[in-house]
Amino acid sequence: MYKAKIYVTLKEGVLDPQGQAVRAGLISQGFAAVEEVRIGKFMEVVVATHSATEAQHLVREMCERLLANPVIEDYTFVLVEVV
Amino acid sequence: MYKAKIYVTLKEGVLDPQGQAVRAGLISQGFAAVEEVRIGKFMEVVVATHSATEAQHLVREMCERLLANPVIEDYTFVLVEVV
Repeated sequence: MYKAKIYVTLKEGVLDPQGQAVRAGLISQGFAAVEEVRIGKFMEVVVATHSATEAQHLVREMCERLLANPVIEDYTFVLVEVV
Repeated sequence: MYKAKIYVTLKEGVLDPQGQAVRAGLISQGFAAVEEVRIGKFMEVVVATHSATEAQHLVREMCERLLANPVIEDYTFVLVEVV
């Protein structure tokens, strides 16, 4: 089995209202040094495959079709073998 | 300036209904090999500090107070210097 750690981020240039809200919240709590906040998603997906190649194909397809929106988001992932 | 890449995950043993929903969605889309899904948060925060130590203290405090819920969540972060 393999565990994929998937990071989904907004593409550069895409507005991030959620990040702006978090930045405003941080500043209002006294964290004046905060310049920018971007919010992304982090997912851990365990897939029952025997080879890393198979896991990689599967996770890429999941990301393209369901876990990320390729129009406005980028994704990266790392695979770790789990026992 | 430093950019902190912050990963917030649910502690082990904490139920993750969002992850279960995503797992059910993936399986219904034909990804039968999916064993488990856990959903976390990923945030990028740029702080205007001159030293990495200062940035580290600041980001840790943000995580403890606002960005993560230490009762049910763990967090890790890495700092990258940006120009």
